[in-house]
Amino acid sequence: MRAPDQAPPHDLPDITADLLTRLRKQRPRVHCLTNAVAQHFTANVLLAIGVTPSMTIAPGEVSLFVRSVGALLINLGTLDGERRTAMDLAADTAANAEVPWVLDPVKVDRSDIRASFARSLIAKKPAAIRLNGDEFAALSGAQAGRDTIPAYAQRQSLTIAMTAETDVVSDGSHIVEIRNGHPLMTQVTAMGCAESAVLAACLAVEKNTVQAAAAALLAFNVAGEIAAERARGPGSFAVEILDALYSLDAAALRQRAKVT
Amino acid sequence: MRAPDQAPPHDLPDITADLLTRLRKQRPRVHCLTNAVAQHFTANVLLAIGVTPSMTIAPGEVSLFVRSVGALLINLGTLDGERRTAMDLAADTAANAEVPWVLDPVKVDRSDIRASFARSLIAKKPAAIRLNGDEFAALSGAQAGRDTIPAYAQRQSLTIAMTAETDVVSDGSHIVEIRNGHPLMTQVTAMGCAESAVLAACLAVEKNTVQAAAAALLAFNVAGEIAAERARGPGSFAVEILDALYSLDAAALRQRAKVT
Amino acid sequence: MRAPDQAPPHDLPDITADLLTRLRKQRPRVHCLTNAVAQHFTANVLLAIGVTPSMTIAPGEVSLFVRSVGALLINLGTLDGERRTAMDLAADTAANAEVPWVLDPVKVDRSDIRASFARSLIAKKPAAIRLNGDEFAALSGAQAGRDTIPAYAQRQSLTIAMTAETDVVSDGSHIVEIRNGHPLMTQVTAMGCAESAVLAACLAVEKNTVQAAAAALLAFNVAGEIAAERARGPGSFAVEILDALYSLDAAALRQRAKVT
Repeated sequence: MRAPDQAPPHDLPDITADLLTRLRKQRPRVHCLTNAVAQHFTANVLLAIGVTPSMTIAPGEVSLFVRSVGALLINLGTLDGERRTAMDLAADTAANAEVPWVLDPVKVDRSDIRASFARSLIAKKPAAIRLNGDEFAALSGAQAGRDTIPAYAQRQSLTIAMTAETDVVSDGSHIVEIRNGHPLMTQVTAMGCAESAVLAACLAVEKNTVQAAAAALLAFNVAGEIAAERARGPGSFAVEILDALYSLDAAALRQRAKVT
Repeated sequence: MRAPDQAPPHDLPDITADLLTRLRKQRPRVHCLTNAVAQHFTANVLLAIGVTPSMTIAPGEVSLFVRSVGALLINLGTLDGERRTAMDLAADTAANAEVPWVLDPVKVDRSDIRASFARSLIAKKPAAIRLNGDEFAALSGAQAGRDTIPAYAQRQSLTIAMTAETDVVSDGSHIVEIRNGHPLMTQVTAMGCAESAVLAACLAVEKNTVQAAAAALLAFNVAGEIAAERARGPGSFAVEILDALYSLDAAALRQRAKVT
Repeated sequence: MRAPDQAPPHDLPDITADLLTRLRKQRPRVHCLTNAVAQHFTANVLLAIGVTPSMTIAPGEVSLFVRSVGALLINLGTLDGERRTAMDLAADTAANAEVPWVLDPVKVDRSDIRASFARSLIAKKPAAIRLNGDEFAALSGAQAGRDTIPAYAQRQSLTIAMTAETDVVSDGSHIVEIRNGHPLMTQVTAMGCAESAVLAACLAVEKNTVQAAAAALLAFNVAGEIAAERARGPGSFAVEILDALYSLDAAALRQRAKVT
């Protein structure tokens, strides 16, 4: 593997602001096959950044929806029967219609069934995977780190967005690290799921997958920092992050970004 | 078709306030077969106006619930297998038990499967349909307008509540236009779905379907205006509209109503 | 039946504060098979008190999750097919793995199907049942009261937590009454469901089931009182109760507890 390009993307805040502007203007459609716990919050996060979400999991009509959207999210959080069938159909439709899609392999470290289903979906070529360190380890067989993430990304020909205290985004050739966010983000359900949906949204308006992924993570985590300053606990935090995403601008992104 | 009665309902704010009082006193039960994204917010909207919601989609017991409620909502937002089976059963039970019901044909313009399922449900005689302009066009074959909406309502023997910047309510003989609401209502998921549930709630205490529908739309949109004044974005807006519905009174309705 | 021990648990506020401390430190996993309306709020309530929730209802993997958690909740609110299958599997797994579990027999008074399914689950030995007066009557055949609740608890060898204006907790030998809470708690969906999840969480760190149940009800209702003081209606109340649970401490519990 050739050495990853480690030049820090100094312009990520501006790239992100520009990408948010495009979302608010173009208002792309994004279809989400996501878990039952995350559906409501994810739809509100997408609406807050200017996206029109659709969420049906009915196998009979999922292809109809997927073929006319700008991007697709597949999240394995609650893997009931119809949802699983719909995921296979949606991934195939996305491949045929050249719709970029994101996989969020929730809790593959807790269940072999999920891990093997996730692998079968990865073979259908998502543009990006958003996951945490435990999920990365379960899929790749290696601890998440600055070497293993680019290696796995290159092997699978996709972009990895691994979120932790320091997020790592890599397509094998490039690597971006983001150290934004706030501990309250782990005290509210569906935050990671919604972050994956934001990544899908960014792919609907930006073909450079690493830029789209890094911008999504930066935007979401900076919004989290702003929300945390206004919140008294996890209840108000979940409200404030929607308001913060809605009005997120270049100034806040430039001021807060911790990117290398 | 005879000319629709276009006398403006000057007393709609008072009718609406009276209807809200009846809801808070009688606390009717309303069963909702609604989509997975909207269930939580819809239940909270109904509770905020004094209604006791039930939401089960299990085909084995949906009839048990429907036959003892004041009204029923059928919303096609996520049309998975059990939900669809339950909808047919619920519509039949409602017909037998003379329970008034509302159809919300979400996104019939996006999927032929939905459009034809919606038509089969309309044949089972809902009291009212709440939809947007695209959905109206997909069902009726005509652009939504001041002529086509009463014509379709009369042909189907039901009340149409078409929501847009100007809402139109008509049963073919009467027509009411409402120009309340706020753009933030389109930035939060399940707002239209919840508005349909409010319409169902009004039918549980008011037999005049046009009055029930016009009152529901007026109440919901005035609450939206109050909420928008207190909100900083879509997150706080979703919270504030519940508080505003909870304490909505005749004075606010009279002061803000834009009805012709 | 021997006379229930009626000594008032003067130390319940301190027991509760200690139990909350253990939750925040140990961060146990709790699996919830709960209804579609309650999933999102329940997950957020559990996160607010320090618990890591999982929520999948897929029959194929529910046992994998249940066997490694600290406690399980089974809530009958929306009894669709897969959910029901998963509940039987989960109860069996919990029995084998000695994972304590809570049954919330939502609306068994509205449907015989539910009542008989609830009875089949009770035969699988939950540690506790959380229910309201109507649900107690449907299951036990007796009006809820200071005699009938201990009698039923002893007959079934479990703890009953009956919530009303005055909550009653009993295992047959002990009885605790709690008169905390606020009317706004009945104006927000899934409050009872979330309270049952808090009870399950307490069982993950406390083997004395009566203490765990009484502590859960005290904590949840005191948080409700604090939230009501800060709220303007049911929308803000639902936000505030999460913030209140997150920072609930011994001082507030001692000051507000109305326990006999």
